[in-house]
Amino acid sequence: MKENTLLTKLRNGETAINGWLSSASSFTAEAMGLVGFDCVTVDLQHGLIGIDTALPLFQALSIGNTIPIARPMWNDPAQIMRLLDSGAYGIISPLISTVDDAATLVSACLYPPRGTRSYGPARAIMYAGAENYYPEVDNQILKFAMIETLAGLDNLDKILQVEGLDGVYIGPNDLSLAMGYMPKTEPTDKEVLDMVQHICDRAHAHGKFAGMHGTSGVSAAGSAKKGFNFVTAGNDIGLLSAACKSAVAAVRQS
Amino acid sequence: MKENTLLTKLRNGETAINGWLSSASSFTAEAMGLVGFDCVTVDLQHGLIGIDTALPLFQALSIGNTIPIARPMWNDPAQIMRLLDSGAYGIISPLISTVDDAATLVSACLYPPRGTRSYGPARAIMYAGAENYYPEVDNQILKFAMIETLAGLDNLDKILQVEGLDGVYIGPNDLSLAMGYMPKTEPTDKEVLDMVQHICDRAHAHGKFAGMHGTSGVSAAGSAKKGFNFVTAGNDIGLLSAACKSAVAAVRQS
Amino acid sequence: MKENTLLTKLRNGETAINGWLSSASSFTAEAMGLVGFDCVTVDLQHGLIGIDTALPLFQALSIGNTIPIARPMWNDPAQIMRLLDSGAYGIISPLISTVDDAATLVSACLYPPRGTRSYGPARAIMYAGAENYYPEVDNQILKFAMIETLAGLDNLDKILQVEGLDGVYIGPNDLSLAMGYMPKTEPTDKEVLDMVQHICDRAHAHGKFAGMHGTSGVSAAGSAKKGFNFVTAGNDIGLLSAACKSAVAAVRQS
Amino acid sequence: MKENTLLTKLRNGETAINGWLSSASSFTAEAMGLVGFDCVTVDLQHGLIGIDTALPLFQALSIGNTIPIARPMWNDPAQIMRLLDSGAYGIISPLISTVDDAATLVSACLYPPRGTRSYGPARAIMYAGAENYYPEVDNQILKFAMIETLAGLDNLDKILQVEGLDGVYIGPNDLSLAMGYMPKTEPTDKEVLDMVQHICDRAHAHGKFAGMHGTSGVSAAGSAKKGFNFVTAGNDIGLLSAACKSAVAAVRQS
Amino acid sequence: MKENTLLTKLRNGETAINGWLSSASSFTAEAMGLVGFDCVTVDLQHGLIGIDTALPLFQALSIGNTIPIARPMWNDPAQIMRLLDSGAYGIISPLISTVDDAATLVSACLYPPRGTRSYGPARAIMYAGAENYYPEVDNQILKFAMIETLAGLDNLDKILQVEGLDGVYIGPNDLSLAMGYMPKTEPTDKEVLDMVQHICDRAHAHGKFAGMHGTSGVSAAGSAKKGFNFVTAGNDIGLLSAACKSAVAAVRQS
Amino acid sequence: MKENTLLTKLRNGETAINGWLSSASSFTAEAMGLVGFDCVTVDLQHGLIGIDTALPLFQALSIGNTIPIARPMWNDPAQIMRLLDSGAYGIISPLISTVDDAATLVSACLYPPRGTRSYGPARAIMYAGAENYYPEVDNQILKFAMIETLAGLDNLDKILQVEGLDGVYIGPNDLSLAMGYMPKTEPTDKEVLDMVQHICDRAHAHGKFAGMHGTSGVSAAGSAKKGFNFVTAGNDIGLLSAACKSAVAAVRQS
Ligand SMILES: [Mg+2]
Ligand SMILES: [Mg+2]
Ligand SMILES: [Mg+2]
Ligand SMILES: [Mg+2]
Ligand SMILES: [Mg+2]
Ligand SMILES: [Mg+2]
Repeated sequence: MKENTLLTKLRNGETAINGWLSSASSFTAEAMGLVGFDCVTVDLQHGLIGIDTALPLFQALSIGNTIPIARPMWNDPAQIMRLLDSGAYGIISPLISTVDDAATLVSACLYPPRGTRSYGPARAIMYAGAENYYPEVDNQILKFAMIETLAGLDNLDKILQVEGLDGVYIGPNDLSLAMGYMPKTEPTDKEVLDMVQHICDRAHAHGKFAGMHGTSGVSAAGSAKKGFNFVTAGNDIGLLSAACKSAVAAVRQS
Repeated sequence: MKENTLLTKLRNGETAINGWLSSASSFTAEAMGLVGFDCVTVDLQHGLIGIDTALPLFQALSIGNTIPIARPMWNDPAQIMRLLDSGAYGIISPLISTVDDAATLVSACLYPPRGTRSYGPARAIMYAGAENYYPEVDNQILKFAMIETLAGLDNLDKILQVEGLDGVYIGPNDLSLAMGYMPKTEPTDKEVLDMVQHICDRAHAHGKFAGMHGTSGVSAAGSAKKGFNFVTAGNDIGLLSAACKSAVAAVRQS
Repeated sequence: MKENTLLTKLRNGETAINGWLSSASSFTAEAMGLVGFDCVTVDLQHGLIGIDTALPLFQALSIGNTIPIARPMWNDPAQIMRLLDSGAYGIISPLISTVDDAATLVSACLYPPRGTRSYGPARAIMYAGAENYYPEVDNQILKFAMIETLAGLDNLDKILQVEGLDGVYIGPNDLSLAMGYMPKTEPTDKEVLDMVQHICDRAHAHGKFAGMHGTSGVSAAGSAKKGFNFVTAGNDIGLLSAACKSAVAAVRQS
Repeated sequence: MKENTLLTKLRNGETAINGWLSSASSFTAEAMGLVGFDCVTVDLQHGLIGIDTALPLFQALSIGNTIPIARPMWNDPAQIMRLLDSGAYGIISPLISTVDDAATLVSACLYPPRGTRSYGPARAIMYAGAENYYPEVDNQILKFAMIETLAGLDNLDKILQVEGLDGVYIGPNDLSLAMGYMPKTEPTDKEVLDMVQHICDRAHAHGKFAGMHGTSGVSAAGSAKKGFNFVTAGNDIGLLSAACKSAVAAVRQS
Repeated sequence: MKENTLLTKLRNGETAINGWLSSASSFTAEAMGLVGFDCVTVDLQHGLIGIDTALPLFQALSIGNTIPIARPMWNDPAQIMRLLDSGAYGIISPLISTVDDAATLVSACLYPPRGTRSYGPARAIMYAGAENYYPEVDNQILKFAMIETLAGLDNLDKILQVEGLDGVYIGPNDLSLAMGYMPKTEPTDKEVLDMVQHICDRAHAHGKFAGMHGTSGVSAAGSAKKGFNFVTAGNDIGLLSAACKSAVAAVRQS
Repeated sequence: MKENTLLTKLRNGETAINGWLSSASSFTAEAMGLVGFDCVTVDLQHGLIGIDTALPLFQALSIGNTIPIARPMWNDPAQIMRLLDSGAYGIISPLISTVDDAATLVSACLYPPRGTRSYGPARAIMYAGAENYYPEVDNQILKFAMIETLAGLDNLDKILQVEGLDGVYIGPNDLSLAMGYMPKTEPTDKEVLDMVQHICDRAHAHGKFAGMHGTSGVSAAGSAKKGFNFVTAGNDIGLLSAACKSAVAAVRQS
């Protein structure tokens, strides 16, 4: 089957750059697949994308060399399995608070006997190739648990020991809220920033990858410097809105 | 009916800043309607948008204060009328080469006895308000003829004298090709640049508005300085792709 | 092939009641197919429906016993043929002003040697049945020319003599505008009302059917009394909006 | 952030009139937003609307002054949060049977520390405005628990005491079934009618709002007279079907 | 209400032939409804179909005489109820492992007092007819539990005794995986084949129907010979891909 | 830019096998792109596909190695240009009857100075690569004129001399009708069969390619033997329906 170059890169110790897709436009998806991101995340939680509109996005992302991954609406095995059947090569699951949550995520991504994924990779074998899809795919799906709740912080070390989990991904808005601060995609409160670094370090201590959300290349570069292996450099609507506002300002101020 | 603030601005001698929408995402459209553009153009010619996907875009653009306008796939009265029925408050029609082309455009935008628009403003009166829609709307629709062919250049002065036409809009790629140069959205060839200025000046000489396509705020600011009344500061896919590439580069180079 | 019960009814001298669909919802279409209309018109001119969203509407209308017909965006053979391929059993073509316009409509609805329809009834034979589709279908498609322009009025008798045309359909808004009055879906100006009756009478004098647009059952009943064979009793958005306003008023006034 | 005028009205002791949307047409949604309803409910339970088709409906409802609310497919925090992210300003959650059910609903609508809503108001801040969105939004979302099961009746008083719940909404079909009667959207059985009044009175006794489903303005006016603060005056498909049937009958009987 | 001819056939001891739909095309659905299948299953688990794209499929399947059934994404009452509201006349629920799972499925398909289905058959009464819909529908919905996990095998006899369950349906890929073999839609391992026959026999011993998945007419005929009452003869994408490959080979080898 | 391997194959004297897509499903499109066809034609004339649903089909076809081409709804430059902008690498234009028709087709496919294509290859440069897109693309687009009318037969030799036209493609249904026979996708009338061979021979005499429509691999193999360079081996709905009917029959007859 087709190699998950994102996992290869991470396993080789390289930093992966992630783009974030929150609108259900296959034209936008194809464009984001061609700009150099190592992977693009189709966001079904806070992005305005559902199971039905996600399909053409995965297809559009398959045209280039980027790796399509997904954030499900919830840590829901049914939806995770469908995203994998649709061609996602990785899952970033939100609001993982307990070992059970993390185990559910991992199990949904692996076929028996390792997990409980139901077999029916309708489009996945079109994308990945049917040859050796099973059992090789079990080694090719990235599994990230989002750490962004108080319980998730409490259980961080236990979550990081769940077998099969590849790493954790920080959602800074929810993390800030959980810690009693205003929600900020780019945290500035010292306690939150310290926690971000702490999570990154604990992930590494357990031999796992650490991923960090972000709104720009500058932010992602900063996260990379902190040691994060997987850094998000903004989402489509955010980057476009910022670019438009700059463009308007450039004319108004001229 | 609701005022066409874009026309008001142009009639007041102010420069209008236009955003360009080429993807069929209502989320993207709503975002572009909120960033400060005076108007946003839904592009059915080279954008990947058709009559069916255009409807939610006009609706999304109606939420904010920007003015929704459209470029039809062709200088086709049937499609122009449908775009107006869908709530477009302006039409930028491509490849206008003759007086007849321009007259066709104007006629399609006006009800009898001034023109030939067929009556049935299904969504337009939801957007504009039913009160006085007819006959007031005949004074509220912006009509721009694109000048971008050799014949269009030859007939420029005659086109600019077509009654009811509000102005001309330059398509720099086609203009460059027509003049024997490589297609460039941001022309650099002197002969083309001179022609761009010439078109702008002739429009003003005839008391009409001049519009110029562009890929960025810098480009649009430059056009405004040349005297253009209506300047496009980039399209969604172009601005997003550029922003993504910058973001990726920021991480890779850090 | 499946009988066009609408044509049968008209040929038997009965009055047919038409519903009008202007929104692209297959749920709405199915509902309108079940309320007792003899036929429902999918409106691609002023309705917010295009070729892509029309397909599920024709499918939904096929579930009940109503006959699906269509108004194309323009008197355009390509779109007329596609609507027939999609399962429309009748065409109401807008803005027919000349004998040539009417002949174009008729020709687009008939296969050679009678006309120029291109063969490829992809879904039509699913709806109609493949058996004897050709050549029987040539006798099963209703063809109505809309009379609503000054030229159409001038050429009325000649249009009514075009072989193969089944009748004329009046668009009261455009007719009013053409005659110098305010656009009204329910005309009240005597000259317009007289013209409506005149068109109806001329159609009958030529042995053709007469159809009249309308916004309600009362309006359609009135048209039936004037002798119209085909009467439209309102469109989805208009009927729904009126029903909602009545419902709101009922509560506010209680 | 933009005021929730529906909540303001309810808090001021006025009766709110609700429209109900069960078809996934943004044109229908925009029309229903302009007829005078205080709010319109996008129904993802029994309406034929899902997460993907709901987005343009919320956008269309945002054009007018009505307040968009939603009924999720289930009392599911993931879907409730996505509806809020999409711009819903209220949630009517079905089949609330226990205090836990009600607490789950409330928690899903509030950010930490009050609740568990995950932060990512992608479109919500476009609709509501980003300024003070957090924490003000926690006071701006209407939360209605549907009372329509035997357990819900048993636990009514306890449910009404759940902090943060704004009120209850009666689903008359399920309520009738639960009480051993035929399902009726407009109940006629005395025991059911008494229960309807009882639920309304208990809500008021606990200082909460009472909402009642209904099929027409007459029905909604009746509910308002019984003391309900929030009355539904019919859904799109029901109102349209009734209007069509009346129109057809008007012609047939003429 | 409209008879469920599939259930009638099964109850009469006849073998039912099932087609499987995994793409969200209403044109494909209509075609599959016309080729002679007794029923067609809309697959929301491994098919690339969701709640939003399922609606036009059910409508398209309603045109012919086939019976539309559905496989939900999960054994989820909310989605099962919505599929029934959309017009499904049967449910094949995946991964049923326990008596509780089976009871949940049955309960979701029956109205109180027999079950917990929520009342709101929006489109179902358009398809089935409103007359006597309740309570007759409780006897007209096919309920199949998929047996494909180790726990499901362990609990087979207990599952088969769940009141209201009509039968079991075998998912051969998951069954093979569960039993320690490679996933195969057409099993060849003796132990798996024996288990398939065993499940069929146990169903019959309990007076329930047995259904078997398959990829072709040959496979389905083989299952019928083994005694299965309900046999699947392939899915759209699989049958089409095979037909295309054969066609290409026919040309290449000529 | 990316090579048009279909043109390369034809120019090398090899026979190309074409698949035909008439349903608007991107899943079906991706499947058809992976079965071995040299190219797949997205049919906007008799297929139920329009400009809006065509986009994800082109994207899905871009995933594999097949070459995406298109048949427009009409020999309409506006639509042809949009199909090229969407990523089509070839155009099969229907009902070409005159030299002017053929010249219009060729002109729409070529940029100035060779033709009149308007510049804006929005998605085309994503598919093809931006490097050297202009002017190389002018040599990479396949242009086939459909010969299927009496006038087309009369003007065959003149059409074949139009510079830039790559060849002709026979529509057997329309050709049969034009010649006074029943429409047949697989002609059996000697006069029609002779004409098919004649068209093929005349194309070769003019150094142009000859393409033939067909319903199966057997048919396409037969056309290849007759000398056709481009042979269609069936469309999605036809191949699937035939496969389903065979599967049903296999069970019924067992
Ligand atoms: Mg989060
Ligand atoms: Mg241009
Ligand atoms: Mg009209
Ligand atoms: Mg209920
Ligand atoms: Mg399974
Ligand atoms: Mg043809």
